[in-house]
Amino acid sequence: MSDRFEKGMNILKITNKEIIEQMFDELKDISPDLGRFVVEFPYSEIYTRDGLDLKTRELITVAALTAMGTAPTQLEHHINAALNVDNSPKEIVEAIMQMSAYAGFPAAINGINAAKNVFKEKGLLPVK
Amino acid sequence: MSDRFEKGMNILKITNKEIIEQMFDELKDISPDLGRFVVEFPYSEIYTRDGLDLKTRELITVAALTAMGTAPTQLEHHINAALNVDNSPKEIVEAIMQMSAYAGFPAAINGINAAKNVFKEKGLLPVK
Amino acid sequence: MSDRFEKGMNILKITNKEIIEQMFDELKDISPDLGRFVVEFPYSEIYTRDGLDLKTRELITVAALTAMGTAPTQLEHHINAALNVDNSPKEIVEAIMQMSAYAGFPAAINGINAAKNVFKEKGLLPVK
Amino acid sequence: MSDRFEKGMNILKITNKEIIEQMFDELKDISPDLGRFVVEFPYSEIYTRDGLDLKTRELITVAALTAMGTAPTQLEHHINAALNVDNSPKEIVEAIMQMSAYAGFPAAINGINAAKNVFKEKGLLPVK
Amino acid sequence: MSDRFEKGMNILKITNKEIIEQMFDELKDISPDLGRFVVEFPYSEIYTRDGLDLKTRELITVAALTAMGTAPTQLEHHINAALNVDNSPKEIVEAIMQMSAYAGFPAAINGINAAKNVFKEKGLLPVK
Amino acid sequence: MSDRFEKGMNILKITNKEIIEQMFDELKDISPDLGRFVVEFPYSEIYTRDGLDLKTRELITVAALTAMGTAPTQLEHHINAALNVDNSPKEIVEAIMQMSAYAGFPAAINGINAAKNVFKEKGLLPVK
Repeated sequence: MSDRFEKGMNILKITNKEIIEQMFDELKDISPDLGRFVVEFPYSEIYTRDGLDLKTRELITVAALTAMGTAPTQLEHHINAALNVDNSPKEIVEAIMQMSAYAGFPAAINGINAAKNVFKEKGLLPVK
Repeated sequence: MSDRFEKGMNILKITNKEIIEQMFDELKDISPDLGRFVVEFPYSEIYTRDGLDLKTRELITVAALTAMGTAPTQLEHHINAALNVDNSPKEIVEAIMQMSAYAGFPAAINGINAAKNVFKEKGLLPVK
Repeated sequence: MSDRFEKGMNILKITNKEIIEQMFDELKDISPDLGRFVVEFPYSEIYTRDGLDLKTRELITVAALTAMGTAPTQLEHHINAALNVDNSPKEIVEAIMQMSAYAGFPAAINGINAAKNVFKEKGLLPVK
Repeated sequence: MSDRFEKGMNILKITNKEIIEQMFDELKDISPDLGRFVVEFPYSEIYTRDGLDLKTRELITVAALTAMGTAPTQLEHHINAALNVDNSPKEIVEAIMQMSAYAGFPAAINGINAAKNVFKEKGLLPVK
Repeated sequence: MSDRFEKGMNILKITNKEIIEQMFDELKDISPDLGRFVVEFPYSEIYTRDGLDLKTRELITVAALTAMGTAPTQLEHHINAALNVDNSPKEIVEAIMQMSAYAGFPAAINGINAAKNVFKEKGLLPVK
Repeated sequence: MSDRFEKGMNILKITNKEIIEQMFDELKDISPDLGRFVVEFPYSEIYTRDGLDLKTRELITVAALTAMGTAPTQLEHHINAALNVDNSPKEIVEAIMQMSAYAGFPAAINGINAAKNVFKEKGLLPVK
């Protein structure tokens, strides 16, 4: 296990501890290196950098994935991660709603539905 | 209830009466303002404008959502709306098929499948 | 020259007569068949179909290319084509503005700037 | 049945024999011509061309659909087709993984999951 | 001038004072209402909301436009706006770099080039 | 200089030797680490892997960037790289043309124009 892997895992255990095992398990028969890359590149090299804290990093990822609209599963994972690093449900909802202006209402509504799935499972509804 | 909201609701009752309640219901625990924005901005400010009739407005939305390929649920809603404002099933199918040239065949085929879901529920198959 | 090519050219001469020569000229050293495909597939097989007239077909293409945001040159060509088949400048502007709700304001503003380039060259500004 | 249709069908029987009937069946009540276009344009005019063999053509389609992220069903069809024209599971996995650099990790992970669905059904897991 | 317009203009004068006149000027001959919508919807209804401060709102917009990759001009405007509401050049660079993991390296590099254009004009290079 | 960096540079010197200096130069005042990431992740970890040769890897990247349509500069760089690892101009043209079926004609035409820019500078026109 490389230093980079360990460094990335330390972040993942903070942001996405609920899905680490599932991610490696899903990839193990087909592309275990892709899982390793996720740990060694974004989590080890990006999320550990100075300049933005984890809270902000997860929020901008939620915004970007909402705007892109092509990765609904990963959007839910990052909404969950955003909660894990102290974004409030309201902050997440605001970030998603704002995307209506940049990516259109369907993208924002789909983002809100993703948030609703995550919040419901965590007993965080209604959002005030 | 603002004038803008009422003006938008008057359009929504024409285009999408089947889903209004559902939309507000889905958003009420998490982001009721997003539902209000949908009514007050696109339906109140855009769909009420001169220059294009509702029939054409819904058809161009069907074409655009088909081409984007990121909002399958909303595409079905707008296919339904397009029918509600006097687009024939054939006109809708033609608009979707045309997108094969601008966004590729997968986008067009996914659009046709969305139309098929809507048409089947309304007993509008086969399209002649 | 196949029947399909001739059939497509008959449409292109109506919708885009200004750019036919340029399109074939640009492709002739690198991919002349791609020019032939454009004539033989979308123009010959799609734009000639019943169910939607040329005016509507060009308008939905303008809407879709505005929403996609990845083909600014082709968007200008289709705005020009939309004018050639009797869409008014105002109808084109309305179709583009509407995309703000489905693809965001930047897409709509970029679409309006494309229209402005075309309208200016044709002396069609201001739009009333 | 036109020569072009027959020529395209000859390719489809090599690349996608498992889904031909299903594709025509799904479209027959709503847009049979779209199925015909798929046969007559990409399969008849593109996949039959010199310059790239079928193996490479299916692999670049897998890469492109992974990167676009908007057509998961068609991505599975083309992963299946890529296998049918002698791409190994490993080659397909490598092409998909590479897209992480150009379209991001979520696109690559979704592509890998599509491959996993296809490989599992064919008893091709684990990939070595 | 509506209250909503005035409320939105108050935000725009903070975030984008440099481009307000230019935006209205560009749109005045073709679609003045689109400029009004930008003021009345995102700036008046979104950016004024509780839950996220302007600094964070502009940063998530920079991230989203970088990831989308379809609006380079607006990306520069929002990078400028992000600076105007107290994001440091380094924070902006970090947000853009992070998008390499979600939208690929080309999107991140294009975003960095947009930032470089803005920072150069403001004498903010090199970023430390 | 890490082993990973050196390993990636060895690939870049094969695929893109013409632009290495320019890339580092462009990023040095704003985000030198982004240049390092490009070397250490895609070039060091992806392009060095077994399973696909460099020729195929650059060709699928050309296809994917053509289909995405959001990175015209990087598309030119990868067309150049594809030539450097023994793709013929015709193979590159075929890969780009094929994208018309999956991402639409505008994407394919823009891809061909990118190829034309690269081929012209290298004296590779006309393509036979």
